[in-house]
Amino acid sequence: MKLLTVKSVDEVKKILIGNFQSIDMYEKVDIDDCLSRVLGQDIFAPEILPSFSRSSVDGYAVNASDTYGASESLPAFLEFIGEIKMGTEAELIGFGQTRYIPTGGMLPPGADAVAMVEYTEKLADQVMLYRQVGPGENVIKAGDDVKKGDFVISKGTVLKEAELGSLAALGINSVLVYKKPVVGIISTGNELVSRQVGELQKGQIRDINTILLSSIAKRLGADVFECGITIDNYDQIFEEASRLLPEVDILLLSGGSSVGTLDFTAQVLEKLSNKNVLVEGIAIKPGKPTLLAKVNNKAILGLPGHPVSAMMIFSYFGEILIDILSGSKDIKVKKICTALLTRNIPSSAGRTDWVRVKLEFDQNSYKATPVFGKSGLITTLIGTQGYIEIPPHKEGLEGGSTVDVVFWS
Amino acid sequence: MKLLTVKSVDEVKKILIGNFQSIDMYEKVDIDDCLSRVLGQDIFAPEILPSFSRSSVDGYAVNASDTYGASESLPAFLEFIGEIKMGTEAELIGFGQTRYIPTGGMLPPGADAVAMVEYTEKLADQVMLYRQVGPGENVIKAGDDVKKGDFVISKGTVLKEAELGSLAALGINSVLVYKKPVVGIISTGNELVSRQVGELQKGQIRDINTILLSSIAKRLGADVFECGITIDNYDQIFEEASRLLPEVDILLLSGGSSVGTLDFTAQVLEKLSNKNVLVEGIAIKPGKPTLLAKVNNKAILGLPGHPVSAMMIFSYFGEILIDILSGSKDIKVKKICTALLTRNIPSSAGRTDWVRVKLEFDQNSYKATPVFGKSGLITTLIGTQGYIEIPPHKEGLEGGSTVDVVFWS
Repeated sequence: MKLLTVKSVDEVKKILIGNFQSIDMYEKVDIDDCLSRVLGQDIFAPEILPSFSRSSVDGYAVNASDTYGASESLPAFLEFIGEIKMGTEAELIGFGQTRYIPTGGMLPPGADAVAMVEYTEKLADQVMLYRQVGPGENVIKAGDDVKKGDFVISKGTVLKEAELGSLAALGINSVLVYKKPVVGIISTGNELVSRQVGELQKGQIRDINTILLSSIAKRLGADVFECGITIDNYDQIFEEASRLLPEVDILLLSGGSSVGTLDFTAQVLEKLSNKNVLVEGIAIKPGKPTLLAKVNNKAILGLPGHPVSAMMIFSYFGEILIDILSGSKDIKVKKICTALLTRNIPSSAGRTDWVRVKLEFDQNSYKATPVFGKSGLITTLIGTQGYIEIPPHKEGLEGGSTVDVVFWS
Repeated sequence: MKLLTVKSVDEVKKILIGNFQSIDMYEKVDIDDCLSRVLGQDIFAPEILPSFSRSSVDGYAVNASDTYGASESLPAFLEFIGEIKMGTEAELIGFGQTRYIPTGGMLPPGADAVAMVEYTEKLADQVMLYRQVGPGENVIKAGDDVKKGDFVISKGTVLKEAELGSLAALGINSVLVYKKPVVGIISTGNELVSRQVGELQKGQIRDINTILLSSIAKRLGADVFECGITIDNYDQIFEEASRLLPEVDILLLSGGSSVGTLDFTAQVLEKLSNKNVLVEGIAIKPGKPTLLAKVNNKAILGLPGHPVSAMMIFSYFGEILIDILSGSKDIKVKKICTALLTRNIPSSAGRTDWVRVKLEFDQNSYKATPVFGKSGLITTLIGTQGYIEIPPHKEGLEGGSTVDVVFWS
């Protein structure tokens, strides 16, 4: 494989943004199952919210003009004609009359304000008010939240608790959401056996990348098609990949890291995409031998075989890709924590380095210690919280400096 | 309800940490279903990893001593006796002999190093080496990743892709995980009807808090028991809560916000907890009328009825509580984004203010605009990404200052 035209991380990002778009397929889903799904339609209010004027305090529903001039020394006296019950239609009050109203209760016809109970005194069949209230005071008017026909939630919003609550409030019980992107995973390598195999033969290792990539895809909100293990042979890989491609939106080929396997993967990508290979190598460590091809709006990623590399590459670029395909228009922010670097990290200029780190909390601040194990050693990731990025223009970071640690999730 | 002993946000945090502990219940789960679950046992390696010494490059397996002194001008000549196939046991090489080995291939007995293919030349039945290699060079030794019996992952770790990959590598297919905390939700209020109701009667509103609180609980990794709507009556609330409490770890009572309802909730908490009420009001806006009681290791939360308040209180304190109960020992970091505040925010000293904001990206930086709608208006949360916290010792924030926005999720 040539890897002559290695691209920077930012170039690959731009290629993803410029070449892929949201999947134009939707499904109708009950809002109880919509958490974290991406809304596939604009939502307009089918009704007014709240549907009636409500009191925002416990107090007495009044006609504001009946209270004008009321004070501690000269209270207003109103005729008490009963209580308003929650959840029922409130009965009329006339001028000079009042009813007790609990918070959330319906403002009765004839009233336009509520006097807080704190500034009143109840006598047998009269209520004394010690303060005047203005029209609309302590009232949430019908439609204060939303008017009928108002634009409420836009297509492309990731549905979280507030949006689901708003839909529930408006009586909208199901909505169109974007179909979830589907990620297909093929692990290639003659040395691989399923993780369920009890005793390994000499020369065999268990397939790690399937569960690794599948976990990332699920965490990023995609559905997953696990295709198991394919032997390291062009025809076999091509056949499996062709069979899987129509079923998925992103196809991951995670191969061995030998030159032969990389060549097979490169050839399969070239053939399947009709030579529409967009990336042949990234200036990143770990993860340089990464391939990206495009077939219609589908992405085929050839990932490095080393699990640490495969994981970091797919976490990073997979997130961008899944976000694009899923239709999400939300602002993306990563979990970042500032930490003190405990030792120097060497790095080569001209490429991005992602260095995994362990965090410790010590004397009110975090300390980040880089982990330097080979990227074939999966357990070096255990106990790491995330990574530090060293940009291409920097040659390493000094111990004692302050760094940003990007969390895995 | 008195609310005489209002506590600060930090005090409530300490009360949660000091009074609750992880649920001491576990279940055995296949690692495919363990993403984001909390490990309930320490993991030791049942076998060595990798189980055989492997090449980390494409090249020739050699006995290092056969290569000493080799150089461009004076190459070493070794007898070529074949190739090593991936996934099969490699056959012996003797002194003066070599076999081609792909990346990840098993190092043959008799070899202790690999010469990179770049520095070799293959003749008919001989290989010329232009550089010497030292013992162990380009080799990942058996056990380099993990030795048998090594401590690998500690109880309390949240299982993410790296941990699941490591378990797969070690042939561990299922593990003990902590039982998920179960959150029970009771919505109280005579004005409430189910969100499925088509046409509302005057005075009725749809139950929002159930889907709101249930979405948050699911997002935080809990299981949910939705109990529907209870009428606003002490006996009814007590009966429902007593029935639900044995089934859950956290019981949420989200009531109307009228004084009467608050009193009922307070009485129910007092009775159920045998007067072990830990919090009666928090110095926070929104969310002051929040109650917390403890029954054994179970928490009962009386939440404010306004959906915005209920959501913010349960997002914040529910996350702390669910983390404690779930057994997680992971470092917690929130998604935070730095933004320019577009206008002044007033605030009262002596209490914490959480102000929801909308973010816009403008000229390379984020601008945060506060949203001031009443906390009864659920749709004011739509389009907000998170909130700004104004601590008790500050009286507001100035427009133009730089603020941290904490993301909802």
